[in-house]
This record gives sequence, structure tokens and C-alpha cells, in this order.
Amino acid sequence: MPPTTPLGSPDDSFHVFDTTLRDGAQREGINLTVADKLAIARHLDDFGVGFIEGGWPGANPRDTEFFARARDGELTLRHAALVAFGSTRRAGVDVADDAQVAALLESGAPVVTLVVKSHDRHVELALRTTLDENLAMIRDTVAHLAAAGRRVFVDCEHFFDGYRDNPGYALDVVRTAHDAGASVVVLCDTNGGRLPSQVHATVAEVLAATGARLGIHAQDDTGCAVANTLAAVEAGATHVQCTANGYGERVGNANLFPVTAALELKLGRQVLPEGCLAEMTRISHAIAEIVNLVPSTHQPYVGHSAFAHKGGLHASAIKVDPDLYQHIEPEQVGNSMRMLVSDMAGRASVELKGRELGYDLGDDRELVGRIVARVKERENRGYTYEAADASFELLLRDEIERSEHGEGHEPRRFFRLESWRAIVEERPGVNGEMGHHNEATVKLWAKGERIVATGEGNGPVDALDRALRTGLERIYPRLASFSLVDYKVRILDGGRGTESVTRVLVDTSDGTTEWSTVGFGTNVIAASWRALEDAYAYGLLKSGFTTED
Amino acid sequence: MPPTTPLGSPDDSFHVFDTTLRDGAQREGINLTVADKLAIARHLDDFGVGFIEGGWPGANPRDTEFFARARDGELTLRHAALVAFGSTRRAGVDVADDAQVAALLESGAPVVTLVVKSHDRHVELALRTTLDENLAMIRDTVAHLAAAGRRVFVDCEHFFDGYRDNPGYALDVVRTAHDAGASVVVLCDTNGGRLPSQVHATVAEVLAATGARLGIHAQDDTGCAVANTLAAVEAGATHVQCTANGYGERVGNANLFPVTAALELKLGRQVLPEGCLAEMTRISHAIAEIVNLVPSTHQPYVGHSAFAHKGGLHASAIKVDPDLYQHIEPEQVGNSMRMLVSDMAGRASVELKGRELGYDLGDDRELVGRIVARVKERENRGYTYEAADASFELLLRDEIERSEHGEGHEPRRFFRLESWRAIVEERPGVNGEMGHHNEATVKLWAKGERIVATGEGNGPVDALDRALRTGLERIYPRLASFSLVDYKVRILDGGRGTESVTRVLVDTSDGTTEWSTVGFGTNVIAASWRALEDAYAYGLLKSGFTTED
Repeated sequence: MPPTTPLGSPDDSFHVFDTTLRDGAQREGINLTVADKLAIARHLDDFGVGFIEGGWPGANPRDTEFFARARDGELTLRHAALVAFGSTRRAGVDVADDAQVAALLESGAPVVTLVVKSHDRHVELALRTTLDENLAMIRDTVAHLAAAGRRVFVDCEHFFDGYRDNPGYALDVVRTAHDAGASVVVLCDTNGGRLPSQVHATVAEVLAATGARLGIHAQDDTGCAVANTLAAVEAGATHVQCTANGYGERVGNANLFPVTAALELKLGRQVLPEGCLAEMTRISHAIAEIVNLVPSTHQPYVGHSAFAHKGGLHASAIKVDPDLYQHIEPEQVGNSMRMLVSDMAGRASVELKGRELGYDLGDDRELVGRIVARVKERENRGYTYEAADASFELLLRDEIERSEHGEGHEPRRFFRLESWRAIVEERPGVNGEMGHHNEATVKLWAKGERIVATGEGNGPVDALDRALRTGLERIYPRLASFSLVDYKVRILDGGRGTESVTRVLVDTSDGTTEWSTVGFGTNVIAASWRALEDAYAYGLLKSGFTTED
Repeated sequence: MPPTTPLGSPDDSFHVFDTTLRDGAQREGINLTVADKLAIARHLDDFGVGFIEGGWPGANPRDTEFFARARDGELTLRHAALVAFGSTRRAGVDVADDAQVAALLESGAPVVTLVVKSHDRHVELALRTTLDENLAMIRDTVAHLAAAGRRVFVDCEHFFDGYRDNPGYALDVVRTAHDAGASVVVLCDTNGGRLPSQVHATVAEVLAATGARLGIHAQDDTGCAVANTLAAVEAGATHVQCTANGYGERVGNANLFPVTAALELKLGRQVLPEGCLAEMTRISHAIAEIVNLVPSTHQPYVGHSAFAHKGGLHASAIKVDPDLYQHIEPEQVGNSMRMLVSDMAGRASVELKGRELGYDLGDDRELVGRIVARVKERENRGYTYEAADASFELLLRDEIERSEHGEGHEPRRFFRLESWRAIVEERPGVNGEMGHHNEATVKLWAKGERIVATGEGNGPVDALDRALRTGLERIYPRLASFSLVDYKVRILDGGRGTESVTRVLVDTSDGTTEWSTVGFGTNVIAASWRALEDAYAYGLLKSGFTTED
């Protein structure tokens, strides 16, 4: 049995519990694969949360597979304990005979969150059983899981509405769960309608009445989920359930990042392992990439605009003392201050980025200025270099070469394009059945030779990739080790139909290292071609070839 | 002199004060023309706010022009009083000689908000004057404007930080403004670092110490601006400063919509004229259109997803009693409930969705079962119907047709595909310059005719769309009014390079209504083709054509 205490948190006295993979996944537009879920879990563990709720094993094949793959070694957690979510036994069934409860045990997760009804009307109308049987279902299931060595948290669904309508029964649910061995009873504002003062009052009353260890699960329907979570903590709750970037059903859930930032930086409680808070911005953006939602530029703490100063009233005084104009130092959460009125931030970040890649640009102000201008011009068109270091380094090298050889110099290339063509068809194949056929031809020049090569693939970009590889492999045999490991498309400018501009990010590997490149255009195939071109150029550069070879 | 009391609010006892046009305009990416500002002011007045802060007359030409045009009859307000924002007289200058103060009077606005320093360090470092002179500047300016018949509100900038560092001086500022004739003293959390419990404590203390009428202005840097505003009201503040959609510097300001909704629906205070709350969703979206920002789908109360239900756990019970699953009736704020079809849901949500689209499936359990199975099978492959109602309706109709004609029945179609082909090239054009060339050919059958048509476009999907349209337009002239308005690509399963599977969502319009369709496949062009095929089929269906036409 894996350990059930979050190893990285100072102790078990406060729980940061993440439910991005379960409740967060209910956000409209999010559809996670098992690979996505594993990747997000690794980021959450890096952030230092104590518990990661992975899903509902047994309820859908994807969640079952997630727990199986996590158990079979695909997920090694440093800080967090993995949590399976599920419901109590069905009404009138022995808990030992309930397949859904058995699936929770089989998942191998050391912790189980049981969702229970605590609102009398929901018991009657949704569960269609008696209030007493509901209590028995809670008692039996908690005891059964605890006896099997699981730590059990109980999520009281619709608790706040239930407590308003029938406080006696809602308290019976809390006491039943507590007495049966639940280590935390979580009060859920499932419909999200509460305000902080209401949450504070209810949590304080329930704590006084039951003595159970309490947690809070807040939905954001009033725009107060973060404040509601903090109000519950101020009233005595010691377990907070959140999701990365506030993803969740309807408006969303309490956002993990402002909740942990407020707890640590405003209320003085250390709830994450040392140093984790500074990973917040990076991890927030990485998770947004995985779920393929544009990171909110205006998200508290981690947004691109969160420490951006524009107002004329402020800008002049910020130079005197920045702390007079920001509520925390942005570096505490891994973000940085931006001045919107000057290009100082641009120059500084290009210099820093260059140094990070091993180029010292500090002395050459003109070179840095030219790089900043080129990056800005391309970013205005929709390029992004944040996630495409390899493309940025190629741009950097071009400009360095230009400053060595003079303005008109045309930077060297491993290969030059004459033309490419991709054909995609849906038509009957030789067997008479409809099928897709993808074929691409590239015409290139490399080391003075003209190359014409054709590739077939399972899509036009795959076909282009194969054609490019076939054509160049004889001249640059090192190419054989390259493979595309990820390919992301983002439509940048909606609202213009198929004229929308497209950005493609490609991750390539040579088996030992990986690199990321970017391409851009109104045409998804052309944008992909540019990202592929950069991917091969960068790979050849890093494998020791020079353009003179 | 226009009336200074907000006419539409029941009385002057509570102020909803909007600063979208002044503080909201500082949001990164917002750049308002005078016409924009006038249009937004009209929407805010329709929403029934008591005060509209229009800008800083004299500080920039646009704001001066806004007040001039408002005064000259371009802005007729039914509910709101117009407010000019400005600062106190400069240090060491007689208030009667201060041009900036004169511009406030010249603006013609019946109400003036004066921004003043209440944090001792800001007085010294940013204002560069003494603490006493700052008090004199406040006293003189408030008295001067009040003597000229203006109502004066005083915004105490950085109040919460000032009160923490030097509470005595911060209180002196409040008392000075109050004694000089300010009708409201507004406590500003300018850096946005406060939590609700802190705001509540400070507002209660200041109220007890000064007896001044207090307002609250909260920035959202902790994600708590709405809650901070409500906490201040619960502590005795009777004036709230907000912006539409929470626009504002950095993370933004307290959002007008959840603040007013909470005050009216959760705290039982009527703060807007009768009937205005139900205009909230429309006005929120209209203002987003004017500032040219996509309305947030996940904004509380007004977001497209704010009352959208996805979880299978909920969907079955929503049918029994929707109020068990929503914190308010969406119609109260002009929004509506939506059911999302997804693999987390089952029969209940398919039935509900069917009813929403006008099909009663309730009696036919076998039909519903078949639809659920087909949705699940397709969602397992990566389709998503939650954002593609039109594709879902086509699937529904196919299955209804099958249950009328028997299992083996092949559903009717407006057109049948023989084959399509898309060609994308980058090559020198006739002018010798490199360029992209996109061409597509479709071969179709419709009404017994074979159609071969070719289209060119700015991308392969655009070319396919044009070919399809060219081919079908003669047979179905209604097609001419269709246009693609949005096109979204999502790569579902990263980590497999160009073999990743792709989902395409297409929004199509006929000029009056819009519909969304989905396509899926390992090939982005093929996935797009499927979404286009559905888009045209659905559009023809809804424009009254039948497949027998």
C-alpha cells in the first residue's frame, strides 16, 4: 500500500487537494485523454499538492485505465497521494457486493473520496431512497473502505443547500461519515451559490456541532469560490479542494493557484513544500497547454497581465519603489512585472533568454534591438516563442550571423526549398472502399544537389514529414534518428471562418533530447511546414552538423 | 445643472458606481474611442447603475471630448449621473488657479470623483509633498467643488496599504475629506492584495472611527474583488465601484455583474431599478463586443457556460427538479440553462437535449438507447457533441429515421460523396515569388446528378468549402447565404507526432442563425471535411429543404 500522507507537505495538518482530473475535467470544452491526465498529474505533483483526485475508476473506461497505468508505474509521485473518487454502495445492496465500491478498491489508490448526499431532497428525488438508508449507505461504505486500509474523505454534495433546508439531517450526514471513520468530511457548495460570510458561518457551526475534521469544495457561480474557500479555512476547515486554473463545471471550481497563494502569502500558512509556490506560473500555463485552452491573461498571480502596469498615474512612480505598486513580488509566484509603456522588458527578456541558451548578447545593443524588433513583429503576427525555444534560437543565430556579415547577408541553411505539395484525397481505394490518401512531394536543394522526394502518410503533415526525411536522409544520415513526438495546432483568430490564422507547435526528438519549433500562417499545412523546417534545421545544428558540411 | 441623485435607484441610500470607462479602460488590450465610450455609457444606463464615471476631463483629449459630447446632447441618461474623475489641486497652488480642477468643473458633470493619496509613503515618494499639505489639498479641492454645486466622492488610493502602515494618517485623510463636504469617501484596494476578512475588518473600523459614508473600490489581484466588495457592504459600505465584466488594470476590477447579482439575489438589497437585473447577460455581451474582447464563456451569471450541465450524476436529477441543481434561475439574469451531451452523461441528458431541440424521445427507450450508444461510441473516438448541437441533431434524425424504417435503412442525404481531393503547394507563382496555392475538387451526387466542382482558397479547407459550395449552389441556391464564421482545431492525443487525432468544430451562419458541427479523424483535412458536410446538411435542413426536394 503506498503511503497515504502527503510526503512533501510539512505534515498532515492541512490538505491541498486537487480535483482537476475529476471535477475540473467537467469544464465545457475539456476532453482529456489518459496521457493528458498522467501529464497533468505530474505537473500537480511538481506543484506540491497533497492529494490528486484522478477520476472515477469503474465509471468510465478512461478513468479505469488512468488508475491502472498509474499503478503500473507510469506515474511516480513525489509529493501527492493519488485519490479515487466514487459513490457509496447502492440502496438495498450489501456493500461487499457493490461492483462500484469494489472498483474503488481495485484502483489501487490509497485514498478514496466518497460523494454522498447531504440534502434531504436530493436523497429523495435523485437517489430515490429513504433518509435512513442514505445514512446506512454512508456508514457501510466508509467503514468497508477504511477496513480495507483506505483513507476515506467524504464529499457532502449540496451541503450548504441541505444545511439551509434541513440542518438536522445535514449534520447527521457529517456525524455518520465522521463516526464511520472518514478522516475528513468535505462540505460542498455544489451549486456554487454561496457568499464568503455564509460559508464562514456554516463551517463554524458545523465544526462546533460535530467536531469532525472539515474540508471545503466551492464552485464559482457567484465569482466567490476562492474567497469562499479562504472563508472556510478562516472558520476552521483544514482541507481545501481546488482545480488548476479554476477549471470545472459551469463557471468552474475554486482556483488552486490564488487559493494556495493567499494561504501562503496572505494568511501565513505553509501549505506546499518549500519552493513550490514559485513554480505556479509555469505549471498553470503548462496545464492550460495540455487541456488546450488559452491561458487566461488576466488570471490572478499567473496571468500575463497580472503584474503589467499601464496607468500613467502609476508608471512614473513604479520606478521609485515597485513595492508601493504591487501586492506581492511577482517572482514569488514565478511571474514577472511588465511595463507596458516601454520595450525595456522586451530587451531584458531577450538578453536573459539568449544567456539561457548560451549566447551572451549583453554588449551588442544594436543586435539585441534587432532581435527584439523581429520577435515583436513576428509575435504581432501570432508567433509565440515562449514554447518554441528552438525556433527562437534559430532566429537568434540568423541575427548574429547578420551582424557578423552585414545587413544584406542571407543566413546559411542546411537545405533550401524549391517547392512542396501535399495532396489529400478521400476516394475509393483499390479494394473499392472509401479511404483517405495522403501524398506529399518536396523539391529541395542541399549541398548543391537538387532533391525531389515523395512521401505518403496518414495525414498531409505526416506525408510532408516523410517526404522531407526521405529527401534529406542520404545527405544528412543523422536525420534518421529524428521523430516528431508532439504536434499542436491552435487557431488564433476565431470569427473569420477558414481564414483564421493558425499556429503550429512541433516537438521533435532525436532519442535523447527534445526541441520545440513554431510555424504560423493562414494555412494549417503551410504553418506545419514551417515548424517542420525549423525542427529539422535545429536538429541538424544540434547534432553537430554545420551548414558548411 | 443636471440632477445629482440617481433617478432610477429607489433612493440615494446605496450607490452602484461604474468605472468601466475610466478604470476599466486601463485593461491591457482595451482602447476605446469616444463613440465606444458613449455606446458603453448607454448600456450601463440601461443596466440601471446610479453613476457612470466617464474619464478624466483635461487629462487626455479623448476624455475631454467625451464629456463635451455627452453635455452637448449625445448622451441622454435615464438612470445614471455622469461623473468626472480628477485629482486634487497641486501642492503649493491655490485651488482656484489649478487648471486641472477647473477642467473638472468645465466638464459639466454633476458629480466629481477626486483621487487622493491616503498612504503616507505615496504622499512622500509619488506626490513629493508633506503629509499636512496633502490634507490641505484634499480640504481645499473638496470644498471648492462642493461650493460650485458639485457632488464630491473621494477615492482614497492605496487606502488599505496606508491604513496597515500608518492608520492614524489614513483616518485623517478620511476625516478631512468628510469634513470638507465629500458625500462618500471610497476606500480603494489599489494594489488588489486584500482578502474579504481583512476588508471587512478595516471598513468596520474606519466607519466606527470616522462616521463618514464609505465606499469600496477593489482590484482583483487575489481573485477576491467581488467578495471584497460584498465584505465591505456587509461591514457598512453603501457605495460600490465596479466595472463591466471586471475589466481593469492587471487582473481587473470588481465585476459589476456578480456584485449586483449578489446584492440583489443573495443579500436581498434592491440596488438597481426594477427589471434591470434580467438585462445583465445581454449588456455584458454587448459591452464585450464594443471593447472587442471575446465574452468569457465562464463568467459568473452571464457566461455561456454559467448554467450548462454536463455531469451524468446531475443530468438525470435535473429533469426532476432543476432548482436542485442551480443556485438561481438563469432567467433572473437573462441567461438560460443548457444541457451538454457528453460521455459523462447518459440517457437522461440525451432525452433532455432532444427535448431542447424539439424532439420528444421520452417514450422510445430503444431509440434513446441507440442514440446514447452511438454518441458514446463516437465520443470514445474523440467526437464531442457538447459544442456541436447541429451534428448531434443530424445524428438524432438519422436514428429516428432508422427506427421508422427499420435497422438496415440508409438515412437520406442532401448529397452523397464520390470523392474529394485537396492540394496545397508552396512554389513560385507566375510572378516568380514563392507563394501558397490551394485547390480542391469534389465529386458529388445530388438529386440524381453527378457534380464535379473545383475551388481555390486561402487554405485547403477554404478551398474544399468553395468547391462544395460551387458544386451544390445550383441545386440548392439557399447555400449562397451560408458562411463559415468560426473554425476550431483541437489535437486530441498529443505524444504521437503527426499521427495525433484531430477534432474540428465549425460554426456556420446563414445571416440570421448560427449552428455548430463537428468532424474527427487522424487527418485534419478529412476531419474538416466531415464538419463541413454536416454544416451544409444541417443548414439545408433548417432552411426548409427536405432530402426529397
